[in-house]
Amino acid sequence: MQQSPFLGELVGTMVLILLGNGVVANVVLKKTKGENSGWIVITAGWGFAVMIGIFTANAFGSAAAHLNPAVTIAFAVLRNDYASVPSYLLAQLIGAFLGSVLVWLQYFPHWKATEDPGSKLACFATGPAIRSYGYNFLSEFIATILLIVGVVAIGYAGTADPDKGGIPSGLTPYLVGMLVWSLGLSLGGTTGYGINPVRDLGPRLAHMLLPIPGKGTSDWSYGWIPVLGPILGAIVGGLILRSFSF
Amino acid sequence: MQQSPFLGELVGTMVLILLGNGVVANVVLKKTKGENSGWIVITAGWGFAVMIGIFTANAFGSAAAHLNPAVTIAFAVLRNDYASVPSYLLAQLIGAFLGSVLVWLQYFPHWKATEDPGSKLACFATGPAIRSYGYNFLSEFIATILLIVGVVAIGYAGTADPDKGGIPSGLTPYLVGMLVWSLGLSLGGTTGYGINPVRDLGPRLAHMLLPIPGKGTSDWSYGWIPVLGPILGAIVGGLILRSFSF
Amino acid sequence: MQQSPFLGELVGTMVLILLGNGVVANVVLKKTKGENSGWIVITAGWGFAVMIGIFTANAFGSAAAHLNPAVTIAFAVLRNDYASVPSYLLAQLIGAFLGSVLVWLQYFPHWKATEDPGSKLACFATGPAIRSYGYNFLSEFIATILLIVGVVAIGYAGTADPDKGGIPSGLTPYLVGMLVWSLGLSLGGTTGYGINPVRDLGPRLAHMLLPIPGKGTSDWSYGWIPVLGPILGAIVGGLILRSFSF
Amino acid sequence: MQQSPFLGELVGTMVLILLGNGVVANVVLKKTKGENSGWIVITAGWGFAVMIGIFTANAFGSAAAHLNPAVTIAFAVLRNDYASVPSYLLAQLIGAFLGSVLVWLQYFPHWKATEDPGSKLACFATGPAIRSYGYNFLSEFIATILLIVGVVAIGYAGTADPDKGGIPSGLTPYLVGMLVWSLGLSLGGTTGYGINPVRDLGPRLAHMLLPIPGKGTSDWSYGWIPVLGPILGAIVGGLILRSFSF
Repeated sequence: MQQSPFLGELVGTMVLILLGNGVVANVVLKKTKGENSGWIVITAGWGFAVMIGIFTANAFGSAAAHLNPAVTIAFAVLRNDYASVPSYLLAQLIGAFLGSVLVWLQYFPHWKATEDPGSKLACFATGPAIRSYGYNFLSEFIATILLIVGVVAIGYAGTADPDKGGIPSGLTPYLVGMLVWSLGLSLGGTTGYGINPVRDLGPRLAHMLLPIPGKGTSDWSYGWIPVLGPILGAIVGGLILRSFSF
Repeated sequence: MQQSPFLGELVGTMVLILLGNGVVANVVLKKTKGENSGWIVITAGWGFAVMIGIFTANAFGSAAAHLNPAVTIAFAVLRNDYASVPSYLLAQLIGAFLGSVLVWLQYFPHWKATEDPGSKLACFATGPAIRSYGYNFLSEFIATILLIVGVVAIGYAGTADPDKGGIPSGLTPYLVGMLVWSLGLSLGGTTGYGINPVRDLGPRLAHMLLPIPGKGTSDWSYGWIPVLGPILGAIVGGLILRSFSF
Repeated sequence: MQQSPFLGELVGTMVLILLGNGVVANVVLKKTKGENSGWIVITAGWGFAVMIGIFTANAFGSAAAHLNPAVTIAFAVLRNDYASVPSYLLAQLIGAFLGSVLVWLQYFPHWKATEDPGSKLACFATGPAIRSYGYNFLSEFIATILLIVGVVAIGYAGTADPDKGGIPSGLTPYLVGMLVWSLGLSLGGTTGYGINPVRDLGPRLAHMLLPIPGKGTSDWSYGWIPVLGPILGAIVGGLILRSFSF
Repeated sequence: MQQSPFLGELVGTMVLILLGNGVVANVVLKKTKGENSGWIVITAGWGFAVMIGIFTANAFGSAAAHLNPAVTIAFAVLRNDYASVPSYLLAQLIGAFLGSVLVWLQYFPHWKATEDPGSKLACFATGPAIRSYGYNFLSEFIATILLIVGVVAIGYAGTADPDKGGIPSGLTPYLVGMLVWSLGLSLGGTTGYGINPVRDLGPRLAHMLLPIPGKGTSDWSYGWIPVLGPILGAIVGGLILRSFSF
C-alpha cells in the first residue's frame, strides 16, 4: 500500500480520537482504572493524543497533519488556496468516526457498567457546562482562534532560522500537543473544547449509530455549535493571520 | 498590517493572560468542567500560557517576548539600556487588560453561577493566602528574582555553543514555560505568584471596569504589592546579574 | 565488563519495571508518601520509566532498546528478520523479573502494612477493571497496536531529514515515554495497559516466588491475556506497517 | 564578580533547595494556595527544581552542575579523580543551607499557621513513611544508584554522535529534571527520596538553627540515613559504571 495525505489525515485523526475520547472514557465511565481522575488527566490525555496523531499522520503520508477541519480551513484562508479542503475534511471525518468506534470497543464492558446516559455521550461528543448557545458558540470561537494562532506561531518558530529562534521542526508535534493541553486547561472549562468540527461530529454520529447499552439522546440540538463555532473561528483566525502577512 | 515589537508584546501578553487567568477561572468558578481541579491544573495552565504567549509574541514581532515589565526592567538594568522600557510596558499593560476581557467573555455564564466575590476576583488579580503586606511583598520579591535568574540562565544556555551546553534557541519558550510552572508549584503558595506587574494590574483594572454580576471589591489595598514587589525584584535581580557580567 | 544488546535489554527492562511497578507500589500500598495519589501519578510514572529504561538500555549496549517483546516481535515481522528475537526476549524476561525483585525490596516495610492481597498483586502484574477475557484481550490487542504504530511513527520522524520534519534522534526516548504516558491515560482504564508480555509475566513470576507477607493468588487464569494480547497486537501491527512499506 | 565552579554549585544548590523544599512547604503547610495538592505537585516541583538548579549552576560557572554530593562522589569514583570533591561538597552544603533559609522566608506567615511540628520539619528534611532504619537505608541506596545510572545514561546520550542517538547536550538539564521527577514518583514513596546528602543535611541544620514558631525535634536520629545511604549508593553506582568502562 501507499502513504498519502488522505490516508495520513484519516489514520491520524483516528488515532487522535481513539486516544482523546479514550481518556474521557477512562475518567467518566464507571469501574475504570482512571475513574474520576480529573481534569488534569483529561487535558493531558488530549494533548498527547494530538501529538501522537500528528506523528502518525506524518508517517502515513500527511506532512501537514491537520487532523482538524478548523486547521485545514484556516490554512486555506491564510493561503487563499482551497484545493485540498474537501478531501482533507472527508478523511478527517471518516477517521474521527472510526476512532470513536475503537473507543467503543476498547471500553466495551464499561458501557453497561455506567448508568448515566450523559456520561456515555461525553465519551463521544462535547457538551456545555452551562447550556447557553450564544456563549457556548463564543467559547468555541475564541478557543479555536487561539488554536489557529498558536499552531501558526509554533510553526513559524519551526521554519525560522535556528539563529533567530528556530526549533527543530520535528518537535512541532510535541509543542502542538502542549498547545492543546493548554487550551484544555485554560479554555476548556465551558464547552469541553471541541475546537475541531470532526472531533465532535464524527463521534456524535458514532454515538447515534452504535448499539450502546442504555444510551440516551445524541443531543443534536447542541451539535451544531462545536461544528460551526470552530469553523467561524478558523475563518476569522485565518483572515487575521493573512492581514498580518503570515 | 505589520509585525512589530509593540504589537508582539501586546498580543503575546494578551494570550498569556487569556490562558493564564483562563485556567484560574476554570478551577475557581462554579459549574466549569475543571471546577476544583487543583494546584497542578493552575500551575500547568500558567506554565503553558507563558510558552504560548512567547511563541505568539515572537510571531507578531517581538523577538524579546518579555510579556512582563519585570523581565523588561531586569534586562534594562542588566544592559543599562532603558530605551524600550516605556513602549514595552504600555504594550504589556494593554495586552493584559485585553486578555482579561477575553477571559470574562470566555467564561461569561459562569460569573452568575458563582456566588463568592473573592473567587471572581481571583480570576483577575492575585491575592495573598495569609494577608501580611511585608511578607507578601517579600514573597513576590524572592519569586521574581528567581524568575529573572531562571530566564537569564535558560537564555544563557540558548546562546551558548552547543558543544558547551547550548540548546536549540527555539526551545527556550518551552523551557521558560516550565520555569514558570516550577515557580508556581514551589513559590506560588503564598501570594499566587504575581511576579509580573501587568499580570496583576491589567486584570485588576478589568475587574474594576467590567460589569461582572455580583462582583465585590477589586482589593486595591493589596494591589500595589504584586506591582512593586516584582519591580524591586527585577531591579535587584538585574543588578545581581550585572555584577556577574551576564 | 562489556556493553552488549543482551545486557542493554536486561538492564533497561530491569529499570523499566523497577520504576514502573515502583510507582504502582507508591500509589497502591498503604502508608506510602504517594498513597492514593491517583491515575496521573501512575501513568506519568510509567511514561518516565520507559524513557529512563531506554536511555539506560542504550548506554548498556542496546541501541534498539525495545524492553518489550511486543516491540521486538513487531520489528521482526516488519523487517522479516527474526534472528535476535530469542535473545532479546530472554534478556527482557530476566530484566523484568529482577526489576520486580527490586520493587519488593524498595517497598519492603509496606507489604506488611497493606492488607488487601489484590493491592499487593497490582504492584507486580496487571489485572482487568472488569473481568471479561474476550474484551480484556481486545483491549490489550488494540493498545499494543497503538504502541507499535506510535513507536514506528516517532522513529520515522527521528530518522527523517530535519528539513522534512526530523527530530534529533536522541530525543526519541523522551517522546516514546510520552507515548506510553498517553496510552496509559487513554487506553489503560480497562486492563491497566500491560502492552508488554514480560512487563506482566516477569513480575507475576516474582509475585509467585517471593515471600510477600499476606499475599494472595498470582491470578494465573488472567495471566495469559497480557502476554498473548500484546503478542498478537505486535504481529498484526507489524504486518500492517509492513503492508505500508515502513 | 566572576563565575566559578564553586559559585555555580553553591547558587545552583541554593536554587534547587529553594524550589524543592518550597514545593513541599506549599503542599504541607496550612493555608497555602497548594495545601494538600498531593504527590504529583511535590514530585513535579522537585523535578523542575533540579532542571532550574542545573541551568543556574551552569550560568554561574559550574559546567558539571552536580548540586549533589552523591553525583560528585559517583563521578569521582567513576573517573578515579577526587580532586574537586571537597570544594564541591562544601559549596553544595552552603547552598542547601541558604536555600532552606529562603524557603523559611518565602513561607514565613505559614509556620505559625501550621500546628503539626512534623509538617514543619518535612519542609526541611526527609523522613520515612514507615520507620525502619535498615529498609530506609536500602531505599535511599537503591534510589541513588538509579539516579547515578540515569544521569550517566542521559549524559551518555548527550555526548554521543547525533547520528547514533545523541541529544542536544543543552537539553540534559531538562531530562535530568524528568529523571528526578520519575524517581520521586516511583521510588520516593518510602523515604521521600533524599538521594542527596546535602539536600537533607543542609535543611536539617537550618531547621535546627532557625527560629521557627512551634517547631519540634530535627530528628537527628534519622538524619544519618539520607546522608550515608546516598553516599554508599554513589560509591557502588560509580564502581558499577566504572566496571562497564563508562
